[in-house]
Formats: sequence, structure tokens, C-alpha cells
Amino acid sequence: MSEGDASRSDGRRDTETGTVYLVGSGPGDPGLLTVRARELLDDAAVVMHDKLPGPEILDTIDDAVCEDVGKRAGGERTSQREINERLVAHATAGRDVVRLKGGDPFVFGRGGEEAQYLAEHEIPFEVVPGVTSAIAAPGAAGIPVTHRDFASSVSFVTGHEDPTKPESAVDWDALAATGGTIVVLMGVGRLPDYTRALREAGMAGETPVALVERGTWPDMRTVTGTLDSIVDVRDEHDVSPPAVTVIGEVASVREDVVALLRGRGAQGANVDARDANAGDE
Amino acid sequence: MSEGDASRSDGRRDTETGTVYLVGSGPGDPGLLTVRARELLDDAAVVMHDKLPGPEILDTIDDAVCEDVGKRAGGERTSQREINERLVAHATAGRDVVRLKGGDPFVFGRGGEEAQYLAEHEIPFEVVPGVTSAIAAPGAAGIPVTHRDFASSVSFVTGHEDPTKPESAVDWDALAATGGTIVVLMGVGRLPDYTRALREAGMAGETPVALVERGTWPDMRTVTGTLDSIVDVRDEHDVSPPAVTVIGEVASVREDVVALLRGRGAQGANVDARDANAGDE
Repeated sequence: MSEGDASRSDGRRDTETGTVYLVGSGPGDPGLLTVRARELLDDAAVVMHDKLPGPEILDTIDDAVCEDVGKRAGGERTSQREINERLVAHATAGRDVVRLKGGDPFVFGRGGEEAQYLAEHEIPFEVVPGVTSAIAAPGAAGIPVTHRDFASSVSFVTGHEDPTKPESAVDWDALAATGGTIVVLMGVGRLPDYTRALREAGMAGETPVALVERGTWPDMRTVTGTLDSIVDVRDEHDVSPPAVTVIGEVASVREDVVALLRGRGAQGANVDARDANAGDE
Repeated sequence: MSEGDASRSDGRRDTETGTVYLVGSGPGDPGLLTVRARELLDDAAVVMHDKLPGPEILDTIDDAVCEDVGKRAGGERTSQREINERLVAHATAGRDVVRLKGGDPFVFGRGGEEAQYLAEHEIPFEVVPGVTSAIAAPGAAGIPVTHRDFASSVSFVTGHEDPTKPESAVDWDALAATGGTIVVLMGVGRLPDYTRALREAGMAGETPVALVERGTWPDMRTVTGTLDSIVDVRDEHDVSPPAVTVIGEVASVREDVVALLRGRGAQGANVDARDANAGDE
């Protein structure tokens, strides 16, 4: 913290390279920022972010220090190369930078690539882990990603695979074979593809599935169904990104507990599998 | 928060059932508590915890409200049944209770079982997700659990499987087949067993492996090796619980970045695979 303190007044130092803080914002509720993230955001000379931390958190950061590297007016996203270069430029100029990432910086956030780039350019950096929405969104909805009765492992995958890298394709057969919970981040659009892949891999059509939309945000919503019904449930309720998909017996726990659940996760639709199946008939 | 405020003065109300907060403490660094967890801990009438949150966090909580349900003098652990009953008893008496869990309450923490028990007994509860050590311990050590070049999925398992439940046995063959990162929580003792299982499942002996001991604690330590060498590395450095095992190409990222890494994760031993292999010969 001493370096952060030294640069607090004007965000610049003449002689010393700045530090880059790779900081997770958590799933979106400002209360789920870590104490350390909150301190860094309040003291930062520069906060480089996109839209993923969500409006509630972004609203708590001084506009004067914010640098939005998300989608620009034309719909074009700042390239990863440009982000990397900007981080190095700020630090070289002596500024401490918070690189704010939705969730955890090292879970599908390209934080690893940024860390490698910073190290190559001899920029000191620190990792400040965050609450991942892969766990927090289901959790707030009353769904434990592991459970002694149902799941002794949990796997996280992304629905947005890099299509140019065939070798990185998610192995849905292997994931189905683990017998554990599967959580798909950014998985609304390709829901039909991977639910079909899991069915073809032998998972039962009646396996419980939940879609948690804007998990921990004020307008959080949860809908539930089965591997067979969830695409229809998604369409019926017009579920849209950001959302997390939870596949496995644990998704059924919500039904047991939702009546007593408090907080944001208690809100929103709760369509059970039978309703959805009935709608198909 | 209004219920919490109402009970803040004496922790009791005559007419209303208390709320149970299932709160994740994060990996152990008090800076990685969430803002909401910090507020709840500071206001709580009762904090029910074991040793897993770690000494730094437990030291910040008023002794007068702490109820230790971890190992007792005789080495015996308070049973889950007793914990469940105590939670219900406090809430029924009108007290708000923080049930503090290491990491996230719904990741191998039996939080799901507690939620179900509370719901069965009509006790309102709220889930406050935390930073899981499965992500934060590797992250603080400079290891991203996913990476576009190496791993498009990550799976979490526990080294402490319930031995009475054969159907819940971890499927190491399937986990190996995912091609993604595998993170084993509480996996120091059974390291020889599951590294052998993964080798037998076809994973390469030279697959990078890291052991992160007391991740994010002041005396955090990281040692690295390969699937073939890591048991010897563990023994040589006397790695002991709590520790997290990271298996996969991502574990090699630490070597690229450790020289520039700041914070607690930069500290401690860093034995690379070649050193360890040389030691075997």
C-alpha cells in the first residue's frame, strides 16, 4: 500500500515505475467488492475498465479517473494489445493503475495474458482476486455449486470460446463424465448448442438447469428448468446476457430454499421444470 | 440490512425470527473479505465459525460474539447436526447470526446443507458469497486458473472426499479428459493418490503443478513441479495444510511473472520442475 499512498495526491511520481493492480470487481453488487478492491478504487489515479463490473460499481468510481476500454461508440472494442500498451504507458509514467475486471481477474478475464505482458515489460503488478460470478450468481440464487449429496466437483467453462483456436474447444463429453456441476459463463447465446452436446454426451434430459441473469445486480433474475426444457424457458422469459448457466442436481436446491431466501437472489421469476415442460405440450 | 440494524444493540428481538447470514470469509487475507462480509462481522450478535477463515480474519472479530464450532480441546469437531441446531436456536431466539465459512460458503463448505436445514425450519437466510481460495490462492501466486492459450475450463475438486459415499467419488479420468485446469482443495495429504490417478488417466508426467500453501496469508508459500515430481517437492519443502494444488499448463505462468509479482504471493519458495527432477536423479 505504500506505493499507492505515495502516488495518491496527483497520481504521478518522477522516478518510480507505477504498479498495475489486476483487480476483480466481483459479480456486480458493490457490497461484494473486496475491502482491498474498494480501497484501491478509492485511491486510484487511473481505473481502466469495461462494462462487465456493472453499473452499480462503476457509479461508485470517480469519473475523472475512469478509462473505459470497453465497447466504443462505433461498437468496436478496444483491442487487448491496446489495453496492454496503455497499462505499460501509465506505469512507465509513474502512475498506479487499477485494471478492474468483472468477477475475478484470472477467471476467463484475460488477466493472465495481461500479467505476462506486464512482466515482459518489467512493470510490477499485484493480483487482487475477486468473487467470481460463476459461484456468486448461483449462490445468491440459493444454488450451491457443490453439495455432498449431489456434486463432488464443479467445472467452469465459457460459452464464448475463441473460434479461431480449435485446440481450445471445450470437451463437453468429458465435462458430462465428471458427474459434477457445470457452470457456463457467458452462456446465453450458445445454450442450445451446449445443452445438445451434453445430451449427446449422455446426460439425462431431466438434469436440473438454472439460468441466473445479472446475478447479484438489483434486477437479478433466476429461471429454472431441465436440460431438455431450458432453451424454451430462456426464450419464454427472454433471458439475456450477462447470465450464468448452472447444470446439475445442485440447481434443484433453489426450489427447496427459495421461500426463505433473502437478499437480491430471492427476487425474480422462478419457473420450475414441470411448468416449462407443460408449456411444451 | 434493516433487520441487522434492529438487532444491533443487544442482538435480540422479542417477536421476530433472526436471519442467518451464510458468509464467505475469502481465502484468509482480511483485505479479501467482501465489504458486505466486513459490515456483517462488525454488526453481528453471533459469529459462528471454525478455524478455516484463518487467524488474521478471526482476530478482527469481537471475541464476545464468536462461537467456535471447529475442533474442540479433545480434537473432536462439532457435528454438522449440532451446528445446524445452534443456527436455528439463535435465529428462533431472535438473534441474527453470521455463519462464517472459509472461502465461499457454497464451495465445499456444506453451506448448501445448512441452507436446506434452515429452509426446512423456516429460518430466513441470506447468502453472502466470498472469494474462493481455489481461485485466489493460485491468483495471488501469479497463476491464472484459465488462460486462452492453455485452459478453456477449470474444475474444482476436494482431496477430502466423503469415504462413505462411493457414488460421489471424483472421476479423475474425466477430469483429466477435460483438458482444463484442475484445482484440488485440501489436497496435500492425498497428493500421491490423485497425481497417480491423473497419470494413469493419461496426463503427461511433465504437466506443471503448483502447491500454494496458506494462499494470501502473511506466510503464504508456493512450490512448483510436475505431475511426476510434485510429491517429492511437497516432501522436500514440508508443505502442509491448508494448501491448494493447481494442475495444468497454467501453473507454468508463475515462472514468467514471479519476478514482477508484488504482494504476498511474491514471497516464499519457488522450486521449479527441473530442480525437483534433478533432485530425484
